[in-house]
Amino acid sequence: MTEDDLIARYFVPIAGPAALGLKDDTALYAPPAGQELVLTVDALVAGVHFFPDDPPQTIARKALRVNISDLAAKGSEPQGFLLTLALPHGTDAAWLERFAGALGEDAKTYRCPLMGGDTVSTPGPLMISITVLGCVPAGSMVKRTGAETGDILFVSGTIGDAALGLLVHGKSPPAWVDRLSGPHRDFLIARYLEPQPRLALAPLVRACANGAMDVSDGLAGDLTKMMHASGVAARVDLARVPFSDAAKAVIADAAAFDSAVTGGDDYEILCAVPPSHALVFEQLALKDGVAVTRIGEVVEGAAGTATFIGADGKPHTFARGSYSHF
Amino acid sequence: MTEDDLIARYFVPIAGPAALGLKDDTALYAPPAGQELVLTVDALVAGVHFFPDDPPQTIARKALRVNISDLAAKGSEPQGFLLTLALPHGTDAAWLERFAGALGEDAKTYRCPLMGGDTVSTPGPLMISITVLGCVPAGSMVKRTGAETGDILFVSGTIGDAALGLLVHGKSPPAWVDRLSGPHRDFLIARYLEPQPRLALAPLVRACANGAMDVSDGLAGDLTKMMHASGVAARVDLARVPFSDAAKAVIADAAAFDSAVTGGDDYEILCAVPPSHALVFEQLALKDGVAVTRIGEVVEGAAGTATFIGADGKPHTFARGSYSHF
Repeated sequence: MTEDDLIARYFVPIAGPAALGLKDDTALYAPPAGQELVLTVDALVAGVHFFPDDPPQTIARKALRVNISDLAAKGSEPQGFLLTLALPHGTDAAWLERFAGALGEDAKTYRCPLMGGDTVSTPGPLMISITVLGCVPAGSMVKRTGAETGDILFVSGTIGDAALGLLVHGKSPPAWVDRLSGPHRDFLIARYLEPQPRLALAPLVRACANGAMDVSDGLAGDLTKMMHASGVAARVDLARVPFSDAAKAVIADAAAFDSAVTGGDDYEILCAVPPSHALVFEQLALKDGVAVTRIGEVVEGAAGTATFIGADGKPHTFARGSYSHF
Repeated sequence: MTEDDLIARYFVPIAGPAALGLKDDTALYAPPAGQELVLTVDALVAGVHFFPDDPPQTIARKALRVNISDLAAKGSEPQGFLLTLALPHGTDAAWLERFAGALGEDAKTYRCPLMGGDTVSTPGPLMISITVLGCVPAGSMVKRTGAETGDILFVSGTIGDAALGLLVHGKSPPAWVDRLSGPHRDFLIARYLEPQPRLALAPLVRACANGAMDVSDGLAGDLTKMMHASGVAARVDLARVPFSDAAKAVIADAAAFDSAVTGGDDYEILCAVPPSHALVFEQLALKDGVAVTRIGEVVEGAAGTATFIGADGKPHTFARGSYSHF
C-alpha cells in the first residue's frame, strides 16, 4: 500500500472541510471572527505512553483526547487536528482500520475533525503526535499563570484512577490489586486507557476560573507547577480530594494512595476560582454532568509551594513528586 | 534533566510571543485580520529521512524547512510552529544545544517562531514532527488542484541535486560519484542536508499560479500527483529541466539522470501558471533572486498523466516513479 492509498482509505473518510480532501500538503482554516486560536501538541510513544499491544481504538482515543483535555482546561473548544503517525514496519490493514475508525468517532464526538497529517514508517516503536487547534473568544483563554491568593482550588471528576489503572494493567501488579473487585479493576484500567476530557466544562472554566490546567502528570506535581507559574502557593486538604469507589477500595495502602495523588494520566481539570464564582462554578458544572470538588485554596507563600494536609492535620510527604519523562 | 529544565534551557530562548513563555500547555495565537490559516505537518525519522549521525544543526534545519517549503508553494507566509521531539535515551546536552540553536536561527530567518511543543523520550530512533502555521489573504491559497489546461509548468531552482546528494552521502555511493569534483560533491550533499525553501516566491506564486506544490518526492512523481489532483495531464520537455553544474557532471549516466528526476528532497516549487502571467512570473522571480524555468505545459489528457519527452523526441520511461514511504 502506498502512502496515498493509505490516506485515501483510512483518513479521507474522517477528514473535515479544512483538510481539502487531503489532496494538498496543507489544510486551510479560517478561525471564527473575534476568536483566538489555542494550540497544543502531545505525542505518545508505544512502550512509554501506552502498551504496544493495547487495542488500536484505545490508542487512537488517548492520542486525541489528551490534547482535547489541554484545550478544555484552557476554556477552549476544539476546531480540528493534524496527525503525525509513525508506523512500525508490518503494521497491518486491520490495525489501521480500527485506529482510524476510533479516531473518526472521537473526531465527531468532540467536533474536532482531521485537518491534515503526515504518515511515515519507522524502524522504531509506533508513535502518534497530534496537534489540536482550538478557539476562544479573544482574551478569554485561561492560563496556568492566573491563579491568585484566595482562590478556591477545584478538581473535576476523581483523582488517581488512571495511575492505579496503570499499575493494575501493568506487568507486575502490586499486592493491593487483590482487594479490587472485577468491575473496579476494569474501571481503573478503562480510566487509564481512555481519558474522558472534560470538554463540557470549557465554557465554565472560561467564565469562572482565574487559572487552570489539565492534570496529566499527577495532581501533586501539576498543582506545584501551576502554583509556580502563578507565583503563589497552595494548601490542599487531602481528605477532600475526590476518589472513585474503585480507588477508595485500595488507597488505605500508603503506596497506592501516593500513586493516586502523584501518578499521571488523570486528564481532569485543576482550576483556581475566586470565592465569588465558586458556588456558581460548582452548581453549573453539576448541571453539565461533571462533579467538581473543592480541594483547597491558593495561599500566600513561596511560589510553587503546595502543602498537602493529611488526615492527622500534618503536611503529607509523597514518596515521589510527579511523572517526569526524563 | 527534567522536561521542564530542558524546555527552559533550550526552547524558551527560541519561543515567540504565542508560546506564552512555554509556561502553559498551549499556545495562543490570533491570525491577522482578513487572513486564513494554512497548516502543514511533516515528520522526520532518523535512519529514514536523515542519517542518525547527521549534524544536529542540519537535522533541525531540514525538519523546519520541509514545512516552510510546503507553505511557500501555497503562497503562504509562516507564522510559527509547534515541535514534537522524541529523543532516544542518552541524547546529550551538546546535541540538544546545537539542535535548538540551529532551529532558533532558522525561526528568525523565516520569521517562524516556536509556539509550543512536546518532548518525549523514546526507545526508538530520534523523531521530529513539526506543525507549521502560515497565513494567506483569505481566498488566495494556491492549491494542488488548480492547474488548468494551457498553463505553463515552472520549477524553481534546480532539480535532482538532493537525490544525487543522498547517493553521494550514503553508505554505498554509485560509480558516477568519481566524476564529481570535491566542491560538486559538497554542493550536492548540502542540497540534500539543508533544503532552501523558496519562501521568496510565496507572494508571486499567490499572484501568478493556478496550481502549485513543493517537489519533495521527486519531480516525476509529484508532477503526476498534481496533474491527478487537478484532473489534467502534463507534457514536460526533459531538455528544459534545470540542473545544477554538479548534477550536469553526472547525469550522462542514465541511472543518475533517473535519480535526479524521480528522487526526492528537492524542495523546489512546481507550479502551473497561465500563459498571460508567465513572463511576469519569470521576471519577478528573478528579481527576488530565484530562477524559475519553464519545463512544459498542462495539456488535455487522462487525469494524472505526465509525459516526459526525451532528447530523442520520444517519451522517456523512468525506472521508478517517485519516493514512497511504504
